Amino acid sequence: MPKDMTETADIFTRRESAARSYCRGMPAMFAKGRGSELIDADGKAWIDFLAGCSSLNYGHNDPDMKAALVEHITGDGIAHGLDLHTSTKAAFIEAFERHILAPRDMDHRIMFTGPTGANAVEAAMKIARKVTGHSNIIAFTNGFHGVTMGALAATGNGYHRGGAAMDLAGVTRMPFDGYFGEGVDTAAQLEQMLSDASGGVDAPAAIILETVQGEGGLNAASPEWVRHIAAIARKHGALLIIDDIQAGCGRTGTFFSFEEMGVTPDIVTMAKSLSGFGLPFAALLVRPEHDVFGPAEHNGTFRGNTHAFVTARVAIEKFWADEAFEQELAEKQRLILDRLAELAVLVPGATLKGRGLMQGVDVGSGELASAICARAYELGLVIETSGNEDQVVKVLAPLTTPVETFNEGFDILLTAARGVLDSAAKIAAE
Amino acid sequence: MPKDMTETADIFTRRESAARSYCRGMPAMFAKGRGSELIDADGKAWIDFLAGCSSLNYGHNDPDMKAALVEHITGDGIAHGLDLHTSTKAAFIEAFERHILAPRDMDHRIMFTGPTGANAVEAAMKIARKVTGHSNIIAFTNGFHGVTMGALAATGNGYHRGGAAMDLAGVTRMPFDGYFGEGVDTAAQLEQMLSDASGGVDAPAAIILETVQGEGGLNAASPEWVRHIAAIARKHGALLIIDDIQAGCGRTGTFFSFEEMGVTPDIVTMAKSLSGFGLPFAALLVRPEHDVFGPAEHNGTFRGNTHAFVTARVAIEKFWADEAFEQELAEKQRLILDRLAELAVLVPGATLKGRGLMQGVDVGSGELASAICARAYELGLVIETSGNEDQVVKVLAPLTTPVETFNEGFDILLTAARGVLDSAAKIAAE
Amino acid sequence: MPKDMTETADIFTRRESAARSYCRGMPAMFAKGRGSELIDADGKAWIDFLAGCSSLNYGHNDPDMKAALVEHITGDGIAHGLDLHTSTKAAFIEAFERHILAPRDMDHRIMFTGPTGANAVEAAMKIARKVTGHSNIIAFTNGFHGVTMGALAATGNGYHRGGAAMDLAGVTRMPFDGYFGEGVDTAAQLEQMLSDASGGVDAPAAIILETVQGEGGLNAASPEWVRHIAAIARKHGALLIIDDIQAGCGRTGTFFSFEEMGVTPDIVTMAKSLSGFGLPFAALLVRPEHDVFGPAEHNGTFRGNTHAFVTARVAIEKFWADEAFEQELAEKQRLILDRLAELAVLVPGATLKGRGLMQGVDVGSGELASAICARAYELGLVIETSGNEDQVVKVLAPLTTPVETFNEGFDILLTAARGVLDSAAKIAAE
Amino acid sequence: MPKDMTETADIFTRRESAARSYCRGMPAMFAKGRGSELIDADGKAWIDFLAGCSSLNYGHNDPDMKAALVEHITGDGIAHGLDLHTSTKAAFIEAFERHILAPRDMDHRIMFTGPTGANAVEAAMKIARKVTGHSNIIAFTNGFHGVTMGALAATGNGYHRGGAAMDLAGVTRMPFDGYFGEGVDTAAQLEQMLSDASGGVDAPAAIILETVQGEGGLNAASPEWVRHIAAIARKHGALLIIDDIQAGCGRTGTFFSFEEMGVTPDIVTMAKSLSGFGLPFAALLVRPEHDVFGPAEHNGTFRGNTHAFVTARVAIEKFWADEAFEQELAEKQRLILDRLAELAVLVPGATLKGRGLMQGVDVGSGELASAICARAYELGLVIETSGNEDQVVKVLAPLTTPVETFNEGFDILLTAARGVLDSAAKIAAE
Repeated sequence: MPKDMTETADIFTRRESAARSYCRGMPAMFAKGRGSELIDADGKAWIDFLAGCSSLNYGHNDPDMKAALVEHITGDGIAHGLDLHTSTKAAFIEAFERHILAPRDMDHRIMFTGPTGANAVEAAMKIARKVTGHSNIIAFTNGFHGVTMGALAATGNGYHRGGAAMDLAGVTRMPFDGYFGEGVDTAAQLEQMLSDASGGVDAPAAIILETVQGEGGLNAASPEWVRHIAAIARKHGALLIIDDIQAGCGRTGTFFSFEEMGVTPDIVTMAKSLSGFGLPFAALLVRPEHDVFGPAEHNGTFRGNTHAFVTARVAIEKFWADEAFEQELAEKQRLILDRLAELAVLVPGATLKGRGLMQGVDVGSGELASAICARAYELGLVIETSGNEDQVVKVLAPLTTPVETFNEGFDILLTAARGVLDSAAKIAAE
Repeated sequence: MPKDMTETADIFTRRESAARSYCRGMPAMFAKGRGSELIDADGKAWIDFLAGCSSLNYGHNDPDMKAALVEHITGDGIAHGLDLHTSTKAAFIEAFERHILAPRDMDHRIMFTGPTGANAVEAAMKIARKVTGHSNIIAFTNGFHGVTMGALAATGNGYHRGGAAMDLAGVTRMPFDGYFGEGVDTAAQLEQMLSDASGGVDAPAAIILETVQGEGGLNAASPEWVRHIAAIARKHGALLIIDDIQAGCGRTGTFFSFEEMGVTPDIVTMAKSLSGFGLPFAALLVRPEHDVFGPAEHNGTFRGNTHAFVTARVAIEKFWADEAFEQELAEKQRLILDRLAELAVLVPGATLKGRGLMQGVDVGSGELASAICARAYELGLVIETSGNEDQVVKVLAPLTTPVETFNEGFDILLTAARGVLDSAAKIAAE
Repeated sequence: MPKDMTETADIFTRRESAARSYCRGMPAMFAKGRGSELIDADGKAWIDFLAGCSSLNYGHNDPDMKAALVEHITGDGIAHGLDLHTSTKAAFIEAFERHILAPRDMDHRIMFTGPTGANAVEAAMKIARKVTGHSNIIAFTNGFHGVTMGALAATGNGYHRGGAAMDLAGVTRMPFDGYFGEGVDTAAQLEQMLSDASGGVDAPAAIILETVQGEGGLNAASPEWVRHIAAIARKHGALLIIDDIQAGCGRTGTFFSFEEMGVTPDIVTMAKSLSGFGLPFAALLVRPEHDVFGPAEHNGTFRGNTHAFVTARVAIEKFWADEAFEQELAEKQRLILDRLAELAVLVPGATLKGRGLMQGVDVGSGELASAICARAYELGLVIETSGNEDQVVKVLAPLTTPVETFNEGFDILLTAARGVLDSAAKIAAE
Repeated sequence: MPKDMTETADIFTRRESAARSYCRGMPAMFAKGRGSELIDADGKAWIDFLAGCSSLNYGHNDPDMKAALVEHITGDGIAHGLDLHTSTKAAFIEAFERHILAPRDMDHRIMFTGPTGANAVEAAMKIARKVTGHSNIIAFTNGFHGVTMGALAATGNGYHRGGAAMDLAGVTRMPFDGYFGEGVDTAAQLEQMLSDASGGVDAPAAIILETVQGEGGLNAASPEWVRHIAAIARKHGALLIIDDIQAGCGRTGTFFSFEEMGVTPDIVTMAKSLSGFGLPFAALLVRPEHDVFGPAEHNGTFRGNTHAFVTARVAIEKFWADEAFEQELAEKQRLILDRLAELAVLVPGATLKGRGLMQGVDVGSGELASAICARAYELGLVIETSGNEDQVVKVLAPLTTPVETFNEGFDILLTAARGVLDSAAKIAAE
């Protein structure tokens, strides 16, 4: 590492909080991003199979979004507009209505919350409680919904929950689809407990779920299970909240992750790739009859990031105005599946996880998965683990990644895996 | 309003959540911002005495920040980098250390939380609880710290609290400085209750306060009171959290609002004008011994907005590298005081509120204050109310507002006030 | 009803709270109790298959306890002694140690809580939290532990929970043994969720259970399940609390309900029949290493009811000094089973529930069970329902009930059931 | 101590929980009680100025109550009757209506809760929340309402609160009358915070208070303050709960402690001396329009202690059927005041505390007060301290204590105080 690098790295040690994380395993000083590549200050490039944890579904610095954003800024377009009307916001909403909501027969309204997924989740939970007068929200094992106190209550991860250092209220945990193995219908279990006058689960305000648990290990719910959950919510007067923060914006192959499941969520939370460009931006979609907040009742300085309105509009118009992109995604998910299958056969007992373009391989231990990812990083691939024990190697590449780059990335991943497994075998043999 | 405007406005009614607020009283379709001016789609301009609720302390589209940001984007600089090391982040931290922390003898570390003030407050409260093992946090009447469940517990406003639709835990409310009038030392009251073995106030993890309550009516705490609170926190093993989200970044005349008070907060929360450009960005400053989060224990997709690192660095270097800006602010706050005094004399019983460049006039009723602001909007000035009854006309102009523009804005404000008062007098006379 | 009776009944309507309950279905004015009989003011007698909800396991006014109590009172024995040492208390503890604890190898200490079962449960939950530093307590579907705020959180019944009119904190609900039918091992499910780092169930302070759920429908846990739960508690650092308030004091055929299960609970809560005479009295048994309350840390005016010490000592010495009583119980539980089987065959789909001398028949609907009990009352038998839908006809006769009286009671019950079923059949036929 | 005594004491060490408290400072083995005397197993007698913490307002073993109770038991009167109608209960309610409620124009209904004060408080808080739909209850510094989780939230004492080992929800603490000294109107402070839209104190379900804080140091609220609080409760839609558990049943010179204050509480909680004989018994009085519990919604096995109905009826008829007893109390409270004044002059800075027959002297330190009480015990007087630092020597003698016995007791107390002060002076002089 050149001297100035060392010094610059020092600044992080000296002045950045110990809460920093990704930089620990991937200590390069990154400087640029282009498409599916991350480039460090020395010009070294990595293929990016992390994509800002699915915040860069259209890759780094998409040229059309870039051009529009530069034009906006150059022309003194509003950078920060509170929740005032702006022509930029109007254009985004119109594009979102035309290309996303209307074709899917969704009458939802858009609420621009603070620009973090957690803020959208907090708003969703508050709305559900205000609508129903109940406080209990059903959330699932391995669900991840953010780490602010309201959202954190719905998050299953014990490490994050511990960060609260106090009790988290208002959420009942239930087993996700498949949690107890194949024969057990966890939706039926939930229904039994809710319907039992002495089941001890209070009447719910909402049921919140991810259709694919991105942080929780790429557990994919079946359409049947999601429909059953939706029916349970309706029966018990609860709202159905689908947290599409990681799985939305095309990640599963369709714009929303639930499109082909036959359910209409009362609330959808969105963030990550919603801006298209990686800018902080979040929103929730809410059925008009549940749009119950008064003016600014849930507020925040940065609700509605105007720069993000610019890029998000371009993203919608570029990728979702016709079916071409979705068709492309259908092909890529087959590619991913095939290449991940190659990885899975290397590891005894490994299983494929996930759906669409958020797939991975459960290699059975967090140690192994982390070793593979660390080795991949050395070889030029940025990739991360997922799951309650970090046991899943997770592919979250930009959806726009060219087939060739996908293959390059998977070649690195396979090389890394073989290298790690060989080393382990040698050590075991000694 | 031209036809297309109407149509465009319709999109908000049709598709934006009823939670939208500022646009209701100021329904123009804004398009551009330049310095202290907001300009609508038809080219009509308003002087901006709101400044994104103090998120645009350096005005709209500062040319130096703009140039740096455009250069960054054009050159494919990282837009979204999770919490990886980036040269952009390093440059920001270095500038912040050199020009802000070091000269003020602050050894704090910077934690980049999710890019909302509320997220920084949530992180601060969690840290305090983790450090102390206690959950109780003391917050004050009329304090405003955000609306996510953790922060909302610390927020006094009943309308916002009601949005939670469930109980808010972990906070004890105490009267702010001056709350019971001049003779009553509310810090001493807090101390008595905390020191009483049967006082019924549990041992605190933290005391959180704004030195000037921006949303709560521009109530300014005296240095003596803040010092007393700091001493109470220390005595009872609690952390002192100063929420400088609205009052920081020069708003009170110095970079931090507490600089001249003789206290060193354990944690400082920052957001709003921290990016310099109005971009979503938040951080907390924490003494090294309290920097207790493990890696990603408090996480979030948009922690560390790379675009904001660019503009925030320029803002620091441009305005805070020497004392020129602070001197300018000292002059402007006198101007503001003088001109607000003119307003105050118009309204019987009106009082001046606030400190530095966050001052206002308590005109005694929310109805009157709102009428004045509404009339000012019609005359070309964007300005808002504050306070538990919206009774304070609050000036939050960009700190960079030229004296001439300041005077223009105040002229409009005075004209508006006179108009409203005359109308009221006429109605009363009839 | 004679005139003075009417007037007297009026006093209840006029001045007793609407919270009164048993008197609604059994409106007689009771005056005396003798053995297994309740006698009203006119001398009419009922066989008592309710026994004060298992508070009168030795029947009404046992002559030996009565004599001892009268002697105590006549001799100016202490009636109320706070938690001072009294010779009466010493004698009780000695008898309890000699005849109950020592023979069962239990090293537990006795804490005299406020004289209600709920108070003992509250104390138990507080101890578990103090010992472990965790707040989460695992409780089960259909569990009943009392209606004060701490205990109510552990109670499953939704009607009682609703009485709190606010959120109940600190408890996670899990399915009881057999809740999801025969094939499903609910202990294994609990273990999986607790062991999962993202299972979202916080580390428990305790697991609390009844081995037979008296209010919840006479659901009897298997010894295997209880042992598995005990192992889970130990593994996760949680205390095992067995709530033996209704099932203890011989009700299941042994003094404690868990005696033959191969577990040693960390805490046992006792009340109901502990005094032997129906007097308010509760206690908890706690292993010495968990006896962590400081002096009066959990206090209460009536902790240690001195009159109850007198009768409780007699009860212990009379019934538990040798094995005769237990042998008698073994015979009686066979009798009960046989006679209940007669009832079960009358109702299609009816099932036998419970264990020992707390058995009943699930007749499939609360309406039917209530009708049977109401008819039995008219015919001279006091008996009640149980279960989440009141669908279980529950026999809780005094353990001392002579075989002949048992049979008399069952004869009435069968007559009542046949009558109700015949009427229903006639109505159905019309 | 004779050998058998030692052995008997061993049983407590060996088998009684460390939570036991009074017996630590007063280790005698008590056996009998007669009037105002406690007698140990060896026949040694103490004058009782503690009276079971005001549970024995009519002394030990009042002959009339004793006779009635023995007659009841001998005649096989019901010992335990759940909440069935009994002639015994009817007779009690009738007496209570005739002699207590009717003459005071109180239309309240009586709810027999579990037989502890805490249970009555829990029921009161639940009712208030159910009536109003709010969860927040205002309680005061130094208030004591019990240690079960709901009541404990309202209790100020930090030692007891800590016993919960988790957060206590649903209560806002406010300063009691006089808490900040003479000039400060704490009711006005409460009113200001409640009326402030951003005061951060949620709309209350109830305000709960003791007119004289028995455990909190005999702080006596002024009638003006209580009236102001009652008005605030009414204005804000909250119920007024007066916890008369310690101060009621004649302790302040009238049956209820609030009788001469010009307020009608919505709910009154009663326990301690309600049975007259020291038996476990509690009740709450609730205005009919707030009697909202459904049948058994708040239940408990021992609600309505039948033995206590017997003695409580005799107590009401014997002491409250005419004004003789109240006149006697008026004289005795003057005696107490005079004799305590003698004590107060001995200690520099000492102040008289309390009202009626619950008076004491604040001697400035818990150490001194405890030393005086310990010395008094040695000299034959049972007396205890009170207050947040145990700094108050508190007289809670039976109300029936003859003047001569009162004087004897006070003579002992003064001797003890002089002895302790002399010793301290000697030590200081050395």
